[in-house]
Formats: sequence, C-alpha cells, structure tokens
Amino acid sequence: MWKRCLGWRLFFLGVVSLGPLAHAADEPARLSDFIRPLVGTQGEGNTYPGPSAPFGMVQLSPDTDKELWETASGYEYSDKSIIGFSLTHLSGTGIPDLGDFLFMPQIGKPKLVSGTKDKPAAGYRSRYSHDNEAASAGYYKVKLDRSDVTVELTAGERAGMMRMTFPKSDYASILTDLHHVLNGGKWKVVWSRVRVEDNSTITGFHLVNGWAKERPIYFAARYSRPFDRAEIYNDGKLVKYNTYRFRSSLEAAGAYMQFLVYYHTRQNEAITVKVAVSAVSAANALKNLDAEIPGWDFQQVRDATRDKWDRELAKLQIEGSKKEKETFYTALYHLMLAPNLYEDVTGEYRGLDQNIHLADGFTNYAVFSLWDTYRATHPLFTLIQPKRDADMINSMLAHYDQSVDHLLPVWSLQANETWCMVGYHAVPVIVDAYLKGVPGFDAARAYEAIRTTAMNPNYDSVATYAKLGWVPFDKENESVSKTLEYAYDDYCVAQMAKALGKADDYAYFMKRAASYKNLFDPSVGLMRGKDSHGNWRTPFKPHVYEEDSIGTRDFTEGTSWQYSWYVPQDVPGLISLMGGRDKFVARLDSLFTFQPPKESADTGETQGSIGEYWHGNEPAHHVIYLYSYAGQPWKAAERLREVVATQYGNKPNSLSGNDDCGQMSAWYIFTCLGFYPVCPGSGYYVIGAPQVKSATMQLANGKTFTMTAKNLSEKNLYVQSVQLNGRDLDQPFLLHDAVKNGGTLAFTMGPKPGEWGTKPVLPQ
Amino acid sequence: MWKRCLGWRLFFLGVVSLGPLAHAADEPARLSDFIRPLVGTQGEGNTYPGPSAPFGMVQLSPDTDKELWETASGYEYSDKSIIGFSLTHLSGTGIPDLGDFLFMPQIGKPKLVSGTKDKPAAGYRSRYSHDNEAASAGYYKVKLDRSDVTVELTAGERAGMMRMTFPKSDYASILTDLHHVLNGGKWKVVWSRVRVEDNSTITGFHLVNGWAKERPIYFAARYSRPFDRAEIYNDGKLVKYNTYRFRSSLEAAGAYMQFLVYYHTRQNEAITVKVAVSAVSAANALKNLDAEIPGWDFQQVRDATRDKWDRELAKLQIEGSKKEKETFYTALYHLMLAPNLYEDVTGEYRGLDQNIHLADGFTNYAVFSLWDTYRATHPLFTLIQPKRDADMINSMLAHYDQSVDHLLPVWSLQANETWCMVGYHAVPVIVDAYLKGVPGFDAARAYEAIRTTAMNPNYDSVATYAKLGWVPFDKENESVSKTLEYAYDDYCVAQMAKALGKADDYAYFMKRAASYKNLFDPSVGLMRGKDSHGNWRTPFKPHVYEEDSIGTRDFTEGTSWQYSWYVPQDVPGLISLMGGRDKFVARLDSLFTFQPPKESADTGETQGSIGEYWHGNEPAHHVIYLYSYAGQPWKAAERLREVVATQYGNKPNSLSGNDDCGQMSAWYIFTCLGFYPVCPGSGYYVIGAPQVKSATMQLANGKTFTMTAKNLSEKNLYVQSVQLNGRDLDQPFLLHDAVKNGGTLAFTMGPKPGEWGTKPVLPQ
Repeated sequence: MWKRCLGWRLFFLGVVSLGPLAHAADEPARLSDFIRPLVGTQGEGNTYPGPSAPFGMVQLSPDTDKELWETASGYEYSDKSIIGFSLTHLSGTGIPDLGDFLFMPQIGKPKLVSGTKDKPAAGYRSRYSHDNEAASAGYYKVKLDRSDVTVELTAGERAGMMRMTFPKSDYASILTDLHHVLNGGKWKVVWSRVRVEDNSTITGFHLVNGWAKERPIYFAARYSRPFDRAEIYNDGKLVKYNTYRFRSSLEAAGAYMQFLVYYHTRQNEAITVKVAVSAVSAANALKNLDAEIPGWDFQQVRDATRDKWDRELAKLQIEGSKKEKETFYTALYHLMLAPNLYEDVTGEYRGLDQNIHLADGFTNYAVFSLWDTYRATHPLFTLIQPKRDADMINSMLAHYDQSVDHLLPVWSLQANETWCMVGYHAVPVIVDAYLKGVPGFDAARAYEAIRTTAMNPNYDSVATYAKLGWVPFDKENESVSKTLEYAYDDYCVAQMAKALGKADDYAYFMKRAASYKNLFDPSVGLMRGKDSHGNWRTPFKPHVYEEDSIGTRDFTEGTSWQYSWYVPQDVPGLISLMGGRDKFVARLDSLFTFQPPKESADTGETQGSIGEYWHGNEPAHHVIYLYSYAGQPWKAAERLREVVATQYGNKPNSLSGNDDCGQMSAWYIFTCLGFYPVCPGSGYYVIGAPQVKSATMQLANGKTFTMTAKNLSEKNLYVQSVQLNGRDLDQPFLLHDAVKNGGTLAFTMGPKPGEWGTKPVLPQ
Repeated sequence: MWKRCLGWRLFFLGVVSLGPLAHAADEPARLSDFIRPLVGTQGEGNTYPGPSAPFGMVQLSPDTDKELWETASGYEYSDKSIIGFSLTHLSGTGIPDLGDFLFMPQIGKPKLVSGTKDKPAAGYRSRYSHDNEAASAGYYKVKLDRSDVTVELTAGERAGMMRMTFPKSDYASILTDLHHVLNGGKWKVVWSRVRVEDNSTITGFHLVNGWAKERPIYFAARYSRPFDRAEIYNDGKLVKYNTYRFRSSLEAAGAYMQFLVYYHTRQNEAITVKVAVSAVSAANALKNLDAEIPGWDFQQVRDATRDKWDRELAKLQIEGSKKEKETFYTALYHLMLAPNLYEDVTGEYRGLDQNIHLADGFTNYAVFSLWDTYRATHPLFTLIQPKRDADMINSMLAHYDQSVDHLLPVWSLQANETWCMVGYHAVPVIVDAYLKGVPGFDAARAYEAIRTTAMNPNYDSVATYAKLGWVPFDKENESVSKTLEYAYDDYCVAQMAKALGKADDYAYFMKRAASYKNLFDPSVGLMRGKDSHGNWRTPFKPHVYEEDSIGTRDFTEGTSWQYSWYVPQDVPGLISLMGGRDKFVARLDSLFTFQPPKESADTGETQGSIGEYWHGNEPAHHVIYLYSYAGQPWKAAERLREVVATQYGNKPNSLSGNDDCGQMSAWYIFTCLGFYPVCPGSGYYVIGAPQVKSATMQLANGKTFTMTAKNLSEKNLYVQSVQLNGRDLDQPFLLHDAVKNGGTLAFTMGPKPGEWGTKPVLPQ
C-alpha cells in the first residue's frame, strides 16, 4: 500500500530455521506468549508495539515520531526516544493517522512541547532503551530514562490502562496532549476540548483533519489517585481567570489544548490512568470506560486480553520451532489487529455521513484497507473469523447506505472515505464470503450494493471503462491497474449474479471481466496503457514506475512488468495471451531475476525485492502462485520458501513491507498452510508449498481442518504428493468446499521437484 | 448589555402621540399586523427584521454586515446593501454571533466573496432599497437590485422557507456560504462540511469559534426544483476529481466551504428553498425540516406563524393609537424572540457539556441573557408565559447539571457559557417564578442549584465576597457592581430558603444581602470600591466609567453615580444610608440633570442619556421607579413619560439601546401598564404611571387582569388615584397576588401631581 519514496531499503534479515520441529523445553505453554508485537516496528512494517485486544477499538502504544510519513504507526524501533503514549493506532498502513490523545509522565517543571529526536530534552520526549522495554499480547512496558518513570500499558476493547510507576517526587505530572496526532507532517488538529469532570476524571475531544478528512474523536480518563492539581493549557498558555471576564479553569476549547495533572509521589508509587475513546461523544467515552474497566486491576485487564488472544490463536495452531511459532502467531496477531471495532457499548457509532447511528443487529467495524485485505486477509477471515467477517460486511453495507456517492468502501477510515488506492474491492470480500456461505448478512441487499458500486457514474472512470472496455490513460491516472482490477472485481460481481440467478448481470459483468484483454499488447507481451482513441501509451517503459514528476502513471504502485500478472479471474486466459505456458513461465522467471533500470529504482515500492518482484507491496502477492497454474509448482515452492525465509520472522525488522492491516501477514499464514486464495470469489485456493510441519484450523462449524507436511525441512521444500482426506490430489488447486467441511490435507515433501501438479486443470 | 465604545449616539426621535385612543378606521384587525420587525434595526437596538416564530429556533433574516461589533444582529437599517440571508440571529444583544448558513441568489457568473459596503459589486452583496422591503410577523421581503431577484422569507419553529423569484436567466444560481457568520471581526468558522444528499437536497455543518466558544450547528435545505447543477467550493476552489486520487464532488469538508446550485430560470420563476437547523446532527436538521414543513406552501407557513403571534399577543392587549399599538405589540414581539427553542423534533439537544441529551419532561431553551432579562423579561413571562418560563428554568437546571463548574447559566448561548456580565441572575429568575407559584419545575432541585451557584468557590470572587462582605477591587474587576448584584441575588436565595423553611440559609443569605452597606461610603454618599484591606478606592471618580485603558473599573457598564442606586432588595435601607428621603430624592433628581464630565462621555454606554441616566443600558432600568419609594411618584411619572416618548416608538431607530433579548421591551411593556418589578423575588411591583389608556392581560389560570388609565393624555400624566378591584390603593406598590388572581387596576390621571403615593410603606 501507498508509501512515499524511500529509496532502497532491503530487509533480508530474518531466516526461518527449519530445525527440530518438536516443542522445545523452554517454550511457553500459552499460544499468546508467542506473540511478538515488536515484529514489523523497524523499517517498513509500520506495526505498533502497544497492546490491543483482537480487532479492538483502542491501541495504546508509544509514539516515537509524529511527523514522518514513514512512521505511520507512530513507532519506529530505531528511534531512541519516546514522545508519549497515545490511545489509537493503525496497524501497518503506509499513511499515518490516529495517535489520538497522548499521555506522558514527567518529573520536574513539565514541558509542553514534544522536543525533537535530536534534542529530546527540549520537550517532554524521553530517551529509552530496548533493554527496558517489553511487549507481549495485551501488554507493553518501558522505562523512561528522563523521568525514571516506568509506564505499562494494557488494553481492552474500547478502554485501556496506563500504569505509571513514579520515583519519589514533589513535582510529578502527567501531560495529556490533545494536539498530538500522527500527522505525517501534513495533518492537523482543527479543534479540541478538555474538561475536568472531577478531581480524578477528565474528558476531551479533538477534531482531526487527517488522512481521514474530518474525524472527531472523544476520550475519557480516570486517575487512580485524585490529582493534587490540574491545569489546562490553550496554545501553551495556562487557562486561568484574569479577574476581568470570568473563564472556567475546568474546561476549555481551542485548536491547541493540553492538560496537566500534578502529584507528589512516593518512591515507586504507581498511578494508573484508565482511558477510553468514543467517536460519538465524551459521555459515551465515559460509558465505554466504566462498562469495560469498572475497577483498577491492571493485571485483570491484561489477563483478559491475553485470554482473548489465546482463544483467537487457538483457531489456527501450528507445529514448529519457537521462532516459527513466534513468526506465525505474530502474523495471526497482526492479522487480527484490523479492521477495528467502531461502536460504543451503547451500540452507537459515527457513520460515513457523520451522523450517529445505532448498529442494529450487527457489530460495526472500521478501518478497511480493502485494496490490500481483499486478497488474503478477508479470505482467511471466512475460515477463522466468519462471524466477524459478516459483521465487517454489514459495516460495509452500512457505509454504502450512508455514502452520498452510493459506493461501498474503498479505503474507509473511521467515518471517512480516504479514496486510497483503486478498484472496488469490497466486492470480492462480499462475494467471496457469500459464495463460501458465510452467514449473517443479507445477500439481496449486498448484491444491490455491489452492483450499484460497479455501475457508479462518477468514480474513477468506471463508466468509461464499462463503455470502452478499458480505462483510457488520457482520462484517468493509473489506467491499466484500474482496468485490471475492475475486471477482476467484475468477475466477482458476475459470480454472485450467477449464484442469484441473474443471468443478464452475469453475462454483462463477465464481459467486463474480460476487459483485461483490451490492454494486453501482444507486440510487447505485457499490459500497456491505451488512450480513449485506442492508441497505446508511447513511448512504453515497462519497468518505469511513474511517467513524470507529478505522478502520472498507468500503474498503481508498480510497473507494467509487475502488473501484467494481474488477471486472477482468468490465469489460463493470461497464459494464452502470453503465448502459452512455456513463454509465460519464462517471463515469470525473469521477473525474479530482472534488475530494474535505475530510473525505476527510487520509488519506495521496492521493499522485498527479488529482481523486480516486490513482495513488500500487494500487487506481488498472488504472483508466485501463478507457477502452479503453469504446471511448474516447484518454482513456486522455491520462491515461496525464499520469501518466507527472508521477508518474515520474529524480529522488529522482519517485515519487508507495510503489514497493511494484516495482508502481509495473511499472505504468510496461507503460504505456511500450503495454499493461497489467488482469486477470492472463485471458490478455490492455489496450492503452493507448505512452510510449517503441521497446522490445525478450528472452523466455526465445529469441524477441524488439518494440514500436515511430511518430511518438510530446509531442503525438503518440494511437494511430492498431496492427499486430501486420504485420497490423492493431483491438481494444485484446493476447493473451499473441501476445507470448510473439515478434513486433512497431507503433503509429502522432498528435496527435488516431482511430477506432482505438473498437469494443472483449473476447477470449473 | 455590553457594547463597544461608540461615542455619543442619541435617539430622541420617537414621540408617543397620545391623541385619540379609539380604533382608527384604517387599523388592521389582527394584532400581529401591528408588529414592526424593523423597529430597533437602526442604531443600538440590534434587532433583526427577518421572520421568527415566538421563541423560535430559526430566525431567517438579511445580513447587511458580518464584521462590525455594533451590528450584532447582522442587519443595520442604514446599510445600503445586503450580503445575503442567514438562518439564525440573536435579538438585541450587544455582541454578535450566529448568522449561520448564508443563502444568496445571483445572476450571471457567481461571486464567492461577499464584497464590501463600499464596493458591493466586488462580491455577491447587493444593493437594495427600503422601498422594496417589507417586514411583518413571520414574513420578510426584499428585492435585490443586483440580480433583480425578490427574496421572501418565512419561518416556523425549527425550519423556514426562502422564496426567490428570479428574472429569466440561463445563469441563475443560489449560493450557500458556510463560512459566513456574524463574526464581529473576531470570531471564525473552524470547520465546515457540505453534502449533496440528492439533486434537490443538501445538508451541512459548521463549527463556530464565536462568542459561544465551541458551537457546532447543522442545517438541511431542500429546493423546490432540482438544481441543474451543483458545485462545492473549498477555499474558493471547485471540489473536483483531478483523475489522480478520487474525491467526491458531492461532499467536502474544510474551514471555508461554499455551495452553489445553478438553474435556468423563466421570467418570474419562483424557486423555494426550505431550510432547517439542528445543534445535534445533519440527520436531525432533515428531520426538523420534514416534520415541520412537509410541503411547499410558503403562505401556509407564513400564516401559521402569524397565527402564533396573534395568539401570543392576545395575552396582553392595549387600547391606543396605531402608533402606540405598533410600539407596544412590537415590544411584545421582541420580548418573545428569546430565549430560543433549542431542541429537535426528536427531543434531542446539545447540552453545555457538548453531549447530546434528551429533553425529558420539558422543552429545552437556549440564549439566556440573564443580566438583562432577570429584571423585567422573566417577571413578565411569569404573567403571560408561565409554562415557557418553567421550561426555561428547567433548561437552566439542565445547564447546571451539565456545568463542570456547578453553576447556573450566567449568559448561556447554545451549549456554551459566555460568562458575559456579572452576578448569578438565574437565581432571581428561578426564585421569582417559585414564589409566584409558577408550576412545572422541581423546587428542591432548583434550590440546590441556586444555593450551590451562590456558594461557588471559583466564580468571580464570590467566596471572597462571602467572607469579607464585599468583592475587593484589588482582587477582582467590577468589584462594586459584583458586590451589589450578588447581594441582591442573595436576597433572592434567602427568600426561597425562607419559603422552604431553611432558617439557617435564610439568615446566612440575608446577611449577605446586606453586603451593599459595606461599599456605601457615607463621606461621598455613594457606592465606592474597597480593597481587600478595607481601603476605599482612591482617587474616587464617581462619574468615570473606566479607570484605565485596559478596562479596569469598579462598575459594570456604568459609574458609581449610576450604580449607587442598585439595592433593589432594600431601597428603604439605601434611602436611609443616603440620609433620608429628601437627600435621596435630591441626589436622584441630579442624576437626570447632571452633565457627565468629558472623561466619562466616550464609553458606548450612554445611549438614551438623560443627564447621567442612561436608559439604553440595564443598570438604569429600575432607577426611575425609586421615586415611588421616596414618596414622590410624580417625578417617576415625568421621567417615565419622557423615556417612553423619546426612547421607544415604531420606527427603525426607535430603540435607544440594545433590546437585549427583550429586556428593553419588557421595561416598556411594564411601564405602559403602570407598574414595574423593581425587585423580582419580592412579590410586589412598584407603581409608576401608566402610558396606555387600558390594557388587558389574559393569565394562564384563565383570569383576566385589566388596567385602565382614566383621563390619560399628553398632559394628564400624573396619577391622581388608584383603585384595585374597586378599592382605593394608596401605596405605590402592587402585590403580585393581586395580579395573579385577576382583577382591575384603575388609575385616574390628571395634569398635576396629587397626594397619591406620597406616604409609601413597603409591603412586608
């Protein structure tokens, strides 16, 4: 997903050990103890280390940066100082936002500015050491060098706790900075308010003009000890009655609000702050807080959240080394950090129309990074989170109902549409869930939303595409990617139309699904931009990322060389266009070996490069699996192993690209299992090569699906044979129907490519 | 109420004709036809000419100015051009705010800036002529010279209509400017949003940082004809997708939003825009609109509102000349323009805590100009609007419940406390209503709020006052006015405590009520500032308004000479301090003849000057009636006649000072009836001299109270005798108990002072 140009940054640092697979003696007993929240916090992963409940509404986490675009989650492992601890964070996005309501303990005369990385002492920033830092499921801890205060964080669903253990001091304070947001040097707080409800309770609000254009959010905080004194600051000035015109010192509003409480502390005195947020009102933030955390038991909240993680992780367990388990369960953890619960304990939530709605009959979720997550995240949810997946779909349908443009979400972020990325990929999410029989949403209503979205007269030249057969580059940027992605989405619309008996719609959308053919230039064997008169983009530079300095390009975060593989709905058709399997494979081979010319190098999209294959960004995610369609699954096995070994792991720098709300992790999880949803909505998975010795999936219907990989080892990476429920499976395709009813998928692995899968025939 | 310095502006222009009192042949049959909304729009009155229902939530009205502090209601009769028509206005305040959501029709290429008074053509402003203007109850009309569009306005309670009659044009448009507010050169719109719900409906929002610090308000508008085209502008730039990153053209948000719709119009084609507001949400604004004005019949809405005014005016009818009736019924009209309904058809409203509340068991009102309206407005409401008065009190109690400072409203403005002016005058409003037996609010709850407010530890040195016996000028500005007003408010607390059998509280607050004595300096015979050590303000300048350039002063919008009369709760005590009736009267006489020194002249508070008596501001309002306490009621009669004749009338410039949400008008109404509530909470009125030949008041209990003034004429201005229910009333005091049970108050007037009222004894 979108990042600014960063230059080359390669993270080939993690190597999967495929040593002894048995349980080691030093391994923890609980699955949640394998979670390493720090994974992905160094470099491009853009995850955050602080605690969150599965799909939780709050994510308490330290922020080390608020202005760098690249530090979108607020925390970069390489940074040496912490600004403070804010209540909300995005997981793995390429664009910063949230970071609402920063809390920071201080000793001595409190600072009101944050300071800089170079000079943390100029503000309230504090240096810290990773030696004094710990992060686990539902828990984060760090000692701040500046104040000698140890801060511990835990989080429930809508509320969290911060336990701050102070040294003895007559001048201890806790700052709440309402002006702090992860602004990426661009966003701003346009209004804010703070209110001292009583001597141990505050509420507040700010309206953020961020990536989400207009995002009002409220918080409530209760302090375990009444503060000795409280102060509100507006624009850095103490809010105080000047004896001329009265003003309250208990509440104030403005664009730049901060709040300070003071304490005399004893040595090692712990002061706990309970916090909650709401998108609806300060009153609801208080309700969320008091309903979720009525008491003051930090450990209880931490344990409850840890238990939740254990229950979620138990749905998909593997056999493997400690490192494998840490990598795998952390991927599962990251998978389940988004989308986020987005309704209060009252059931109220802020809709896309900025009105307050009641989530009636469903649980409302927000943060849909759909260009990323339609690929593998939501398909994985259909297996291990079907109820939540249905609720997410209901949330998307509510979004559609509230959309003045009559569109399903594209990249929606808390009552806002960011319009980030391209396509209408809510469609595959919904169609995939529908065709897999995920219960809990209304098919007719969903189809109406899907169809209306696909027929939108204004959005991104969809109407022109429907008429011409392609998006013309003289009318629309990123025209090739849009054409290709629309065609896939249209395939999905068609599949649902077919299932609903809508023959005309099926025919119409299947015709649109073939639009990819219009942009395949046989003279170059690649996808190529075409203008509204039918002329090819000339000159054609298949390895070039952008045409000019203003960002004109025919491809979305990629090149023609990369995007030409994007026909998930008709890989045989693509193979045919490319001249048959041999030519197809030869070209695919070269993707992994081609060294891009200098002009395409400096793009910021080259994380996880293997040749011009960039695993760090989503257009690559299905590409390795295309080998299986072409009868050469062993090549898939080699590349999958390479990516797993070099671009995932259990270290802060293990993720090669933005986790993108779980999509990078979902790719890893499916790949470990030995299959991947190249074409959600098709009803089948493509078999690659398993990366863990065994995996057991608990399905919502009570059935169990088990994968085993006999003889898997560092060398034995090639599939020799596959048995499904004890019967040979020769094809490298696995029907969802075979998975959903439970059963066993038994791989036998070996050190050399075998005959298995060399004569693929796509399921019909 | 507060105004900026204006220099001398005197409006001794209206003269009451006391000619033939019989109905003239040309007089209209309906009371509402006597309403002259333009009264008070020229000069200091600060009223607005547009339509409003009684106590309505919307006030559609033309704005001729948005930046001048002095044009607080948006319209100054002397201005030659109109900016446009906005949906909300304050009536008679000294500080501008509201003016939300300006609509303006244009012909030809539309302008997006408003232009200036000097160069209206530089923007969308239009010149107009008063010859083409009409204003009546529930109706306003004007022809815009620029576009030749005639705009008509009408208003229901939460919704209104604008009918725009266009010339033939291929380029007609209607602008909605969300950035327009009555900003007084100071306030600003910090955020706004517009959303095109369909091709004839928009909704919008803005958050205003105004006199009300944080005021979010929403609107909805439906157009009688679908627009040909709609455009949203952000910072003056068209909101349009640039083919790079999609953006909707149907909704946008920012600090500076405008909206344009276009039409091809036929000659004299009328396009009507229905509008409504809500402080809760855009959804509620639409609900308010559709519930209140489901159809498109402009005349029906206008007639319904006119009917409402007829019903309200019928509660207090007079006999008089057309001009007297116009003056009187317009005063009644202005009386009933505030406080304002402040809840949606759903019962939801925005509370002081900015949370959304449900008005449960009462109707919520906002805009409490209490420093003004406790004097005569609310006392008049207890007579002719007791149900609304109870609802206003319930609204104040809700405010108290929501107040983080645990204070009743001081000057509350739509979910905000402005802290404008001094004292805690919600107290007399509540106590007066309680002691008069106004039903509909909980006395125990009210007393708790009153007492807590009077005991506030932070507000304006009340705690110091309670301890010392005065507000010390070295600790607090306007210390003398605060002391005097607190003492009166405390008298009211004591009266309610007594009625509730709280003897200790009664004694405590009666002691505080005597605090005025601590600031009476017998050496000068006036009220004088005292510091915390007990030292008098030295040098003492009894005629000086402000001590220095930063606004240090011991008096609130006045001088010692003026404020020394402020002991409504113990006028006999004041007379005694001043040396008895003769000395008291001699000093009072001099108030009306004293020519203030140059240094006190340029204050902006000298509107309506008669000597140093400034009728245009509230501290004067009870002063003339003090003659009646001193046994010289004929002097009151002379001064009352002078003020009525010179400072009220039926012309735009007839009001000598800010109408202040009806207080200037309430003084006039009571004065016409011959009595005035010098001391609300005391249970009695002070008789002055009637100014209309007869008046009939319909009380809520079904009783009728009638005042007659036999022989009243231009010359016969002196009271010769008074009969209450046929029995002589020698005292110049009238008990409320005598009024509330209905009856007759019969004055006999004559050309010379008589013996009546010369031996006053205050009721106990």
